[in-house]
Amino acid sequence: MTRILVSEVGPRDGLQSIDRVMPLEAKKAWIAAEAAAGVREIEVGSFVPPSLLPQMADTTELVAFAKTIPGLNVVALVPNAKGAARAVEAGVDAMSIPFSMSETHSIKNVRKDHPAMLLEIEEAARIAHAGGKHFAVGLATAFGCTIEGAVPQDTVVRLAEKALEAGADEVGLSDTTGYADPAQVRRLVQAVRRVAGDRLTTLHLHNTRGLGLANAVAGLEVGITTLDASLGGLGGCPFAPGASGNIVTEDLVLMLNSMGFDTGIDLEKLLEVRKIVAEALPGEPLYGFTPDAGPMLDYAERIAG
Amino acid sequence: MTRILVSEVGPRDGLQSIDRVMPLEAKKAWIAAEAAAGVREIEVGSFVPPSLLPQMADTTELVAFAKTIPGLNVVALVPNAKGAARAVEAGVDAMSIPFSMSETHSIKNVRKDHPAMLLEIEEAARIAHAGGKHFAVGLATAFGCTIEGAVPQDTVVRLAEKALEAGADEVGLSDTTGYADPAQVRRLVQAVRRVAGDRLTTLHLHNTRGLGLANAVAGLEVGITTLDASLGGLGGCPFAPGASGNIVTEDLVLMLNSMGFDTGIDLEKLLEVRKIVAEALPGEPLYGFTPDAGPMLDYAERIAG
Repeated sequence: MTRILVSEVGPRDGLQSIDRVMPLEAKKAWIAAEAAAGVREIEVGSFVPPSLLPQMADTTELVAFAKTIPGLNVVALVPNAKGAARAVEAGVDAMSIPFSMSETHSIKNVRKDHPAMLLEIEEAARIAHAGGKHFAVGLATAFGCTIEGAVPQDTVVRLAEKALEAGADEVGLSDTTGYADPAQVRRLVQAVRRVAGDRLTTLHLHNTRGLGLANAVAGLEVGITTLDASLGGLGGCPFAPGASGNIVTEDLVLMLNSMGFDTGIDLEKLLEVRKIVAEALPGEPLYGFTPDAGPMLDYAERIAG
Repeated sequence: MTRILVSEVGPRDGLQSIDRVMPLEAKKAWIAAEAAAGVREIEVGSFVPPSLLPQMADTTELVAFAKTIPGLNVVALVPNAKGAARAVEAGVDAMSIPFSMSETHSIKNVRKDHPAMLLEIEEAARIAHAGGKHFAVGLATAFGCTIEGAVPQDTVVRLAEKALEAGADEVGLSDTTGYADPAQVRRLVQAVRRVAGDRLTTLHLHNTRGLGLANAVAGLEVGITTLDASLGGLGGCPFAPGASGNIVTEDLVLMLNSMGFDTGIDLEKLLEVRKIVAEALPGEPLYGFTPDAGPMLDYAERIAG
C-alpha cells in the first residue's frame, strides 16, 4: 500500500480565514484529537504579527504543545525571515513560506515582488537550516490568480527552480484560488518535477469550484504523496451552500482509505474531531459529505483491501 | 479535443427523488434551455405508472416536446417491458432500464430477482428494437449497495454480459448509492469493458460522499465518454449542507471544459438554466460550487486551449 501523508492545515489556513479567534484550549484539543486519529502532520499556526492575525497569536504555545505529541510532525507557516526565526525559536519540525507565483498577488499580499521574495526566502532558509529545521516553499496561486488570471506554467517552473536555489528543501504547489483542474494538475506537477525531482511531493488544494478531490486524484496519479486538507473545510468559505476553502480532510481520508492508500488515519475517530471544532466555534459552517453520509457499508472491507 | 457527452438526467433522476411535481411548462422550459446551452442528451422522464411516481406522469408529453428540438437525443427510463412499449409509442430516441446488481435491492425495488430481470430485459429489448430504438441497461448499485454492502466485481461483469446477451445495445455503470471511489471506478470499468468492449461508455455517478467528480475523472482515464449529471444536483439529497444526488452538471461542465474536453456546452448559458428550476421549485435546494464561485478568470483561455 502506498503511504499518503494527509497534512492537516485547518488550525492555520482554516482559522486564519475566519474572523473569530478559537480559544487556545480548543485548538489544543483539536490538534490532540486529530493526532490520536492518526494524523501525522499538522500545520498548527502562522508566525505572522498578532496585530495582523490575532487568530494566530498563540502559535508559539501551540507548537510547544504539539511537540509533546509523539510522532507528530509540527509545521508552521512563516511569511518571512523574521517569522522563520520565531518558528525556530518555538521549536517547529518544519516551516513553510508562501511564495505567490502571481507577482501582482505577491505585491498586494506581502508588498514584495518576486526578486524581493526570493531574497526573503534565501534569508528564511538560512535561518531555518541554522536551526536544523525543514524548510518548504509553497508556490501559491500556482494554478491561476484572481487578479492576474492565468499564471504561465513556465513562470511556476522557473520560480520553483529559483526557490530551490534559494535554499528550499522542497516546493509545494498551492491552488490558493481553487483554479486548478485535473489536467492542469497533471501537467504542472510533471513540469515542476523536471526541475524539483522528489523535492515536489505536496499539493495544497482548495475546493472553490468543487474540483478539489478530482484534483487530488490527478495529483496522486503523477506521484504526489502529501495532500493538505482542512477539517470540515473550515474557513475560506465565501460562498454557500457547499462551498469551502481547503479540501475537506474527512472526505479526502474516506477517499484515500477506500482507494487502498495507507493514510494511517482512523476515519471514525477523525469524524469525532468535528465536535471539538463545532463546539469551539458555534454557528461556524463546517463542510464535507462524509460526515453526513457516513462511510459506505462495506468500508471496513475496502480498507482491509 | 476528445468529445464528452454530458447527459442531463435531472428531469428524471432529479425530479423523481423529490416529492414535489414540477409543472409541465417548467420542465419544457428547462429542457429547451439546456438544449440551447448545448446539452445534446436529456433523460426527460420515466415510463413508470403515474400512481407510483406522479412527478413522471407527463413523460409522454415531454418526449413529444423534446423531439421537436433539433439535435437533441431524447432518452427515457423504463422499468420494464411495458414501459419500453410506452417509450416506443412516445417516440424516444433511446431508453434505459435499470438492472440492480444487488439482487436484494432488485427484489426490494422492482420485486424481481436477477433471472426475472434478465427475462424482462430481453422482452424490453425486443420491443425497443422492433420500434427501432436504442436500448441501454444501467447496471445499478454496481459499486455497492446500501442493503447488501459490497457487490462483487465478478457479479457485475457476469450480469453485464448477460444483459448484453439479452439484447442491450450498451451497458452503463451506475453508482446509485454514492459508494464508488476512483480506484474502484478504474477497476470496474476495465473489467466490464473486457466483456462489453465499446458497449460500455457511460458512468452514472452520485455525489453522496463528495467523490463524484473524482470518480468522473477516473472514468475518463479509462475511456468513459458519457457522464450523467443533474442540474443543480437536484433531488436525492438526504443530507445537508452540500450533499447531493447526482453529480452537478454545472461543476462537471466547468471541469470538463477547463480540462480541454469538448462538451459543446456553454457554461454561462447552463448557469442561467438554474433560474428556471429554482423558480419552478421555490425552496428546493440546488447544489454546486461553480454557480456561486463562477468560472475562473482565465476560463475563456482555458477552453480555447
